[in-house]
Amino acid sequence: MISKGNLKYIRSLQIKKYRGQHQAFTVEGEKSVTELLHSDFEIEAVYATEKFLQKHTALLKKGFAVEQVTEDELSKAGSLETNNAALAVAKMKPAQSFQWNEQELVLALDEVRDPGNLGTIIRIADWYGLTSIILSETSADFYNQKVINATMGSFTRITPHYVNLAEFLGARPKDFPVYGAALQGQNVHKLSLAPRGVLIMGNEAHGIRPEIMNLVTQPIKIPGRGGAESLNVGTATAILLDNFFRNI
Amino acid sequence: MISKGNLKYIRSLQIKKYRGQHQAFTVEGEKSVTELLHSDFEIEAVYATEKFLQKHTALLKKGFAVEQVTEDELSKAGSLETNNAALAVAKMKPAQSFQWNEQELVLALDEVRDPGNLGTIIRIADWYGLTSIILSETSADFYNQKVINATMGSFTRITPHYVNLAEFLGARPKDFPVYGAALQGQNVHKLSLAPRGVLIMGNEAHGIRPEIMNLVTQPIKIPGRGGAESLNVGTATAILLDNFFRNI
Repeated sequence: MISKGNLKYIRSLQIKKYRGQHQAFTVEGEKSVTELLHSDFEIEAVYATEKFLQKHTALLKKGFAVEQVTEDELSKAGSLETNNAALAVAKMKPAQSFQWNEQELVLALDEVRDPGNLGTIIRIADWYGLTSIILSETSADFYNQKVINATMGSFTRITPHYVNLAEFLGARPKDFPVYGAALQGQNVHKLSLAPRGVLIMGNEAHGIRPEIMNLVTQPIKIPGRGGAESLNVGTATAILLDNFFRNI
Repeated sequence: MISKGNLKYIRSLQIKKYRGQHQAFTVEGEKSVTELLHSDFEIEAVYATEKFLQKHTALLKKGFAVEQVTEDELSKAGSLETNNAALAVAKMKPAQSFQWNEQELVLALDEVRDPGNLGTIIRIADWYGLTSIILSETSADFYNQKVINATMGSFTRITPHYVNLAEFLGARPKDFPVYGAALQGQNVHKLSLAPRGVLIMGNEAHGIRPEIMNLVTQPIKIPGRGGAESLNVGTATAILLDNFFRNI
């Protein structure tokens, strides 16, 4: 059973302020908790059903609290409507400074505010083998429960770096291109793109801020042929990354 | 003000059974209702704020009920947490039989059940200029409120066709290729794809059913390089359509 005190603590971690205070966040569901158990995140506690505990016995001997609970308790403690597996509390990793690599594509988000979009983008970045993500300070919080859920476990492989985006771009290697998704950009199908440089994706409603757009050296767009005015930022990120990684 | 009777009617349309009975569905939000007003859908009623009514006076003279309401009433009647614009009730279009065109790419969904995913896919199909979508009978309902919301107005340009997918594929033009998204498929980056044939996307958890996979002539996959096990079906549809339309 989850004690009243623990339940209160778990629920408090839905709120950014308390996540910051405790430097901890929650992970829910079979897939996500399993990936967490395989990762190097420090874990505080795992609350799980009997079935989950039996299936993952080997992973649960690492020096953190493990409690058997019911599905009902899991749903009540977490944000998922149904959770028949587990909920874990893990420690955030300390912020790391970003190390430039001149042979890499770096994905940067300028004010992407929807947690579902951020989670989807993290999953896509992981699919294409990126290992970090740059976020403007005004972007959604990486450790938000909805973000973590939408990553489907990819949060364990992608390191977030919250930065002042203009300063960050100013510090990039010389001759490092800055690509920016923009409706007035060049058709990506006509460019020969290599996965080297920074790719910036902008806010859901307003795109990339003008002061950041000024630093873009190559605006790019996905050519549309139908009536839709725009694509969702997660969808657009997926298509652009696929264009960057198609020739290697 | 929305009368009690109308409110009950609008809310009943959240349920598939009642949508079928009344052959009607609801559309919410500024963008979606504006697109509806520009479309050839038959409209029963528009409930809108004073601001929306003033902005769209010209579009509101077509012989349907128009009522000025408050934002609060809109939120209570519809599924959006906040709606500061409008909610409309429109008639479903009668089912049309699908007309094959030997020079077209046809997108078909096999048991895509999540309404958000279906809505996203409809928006993407519209972006790439498709005008119809084939759905297995067990896929999500095109007129589901969450589907309509996620299309961002693209529901007005894409015609749904619910079919028995095996029979549908059996009736395709001779030599018409059938592409199927599958983790064991051929790398799309290595194929020279033209937008002609059928592209099948499968269920969120189980992919394409075996009996449908048997009818696929060319399994295809998006090459991944990182740790993510899979991509969301909406994301994968976007990347695949982009690969089909990149050479034209």
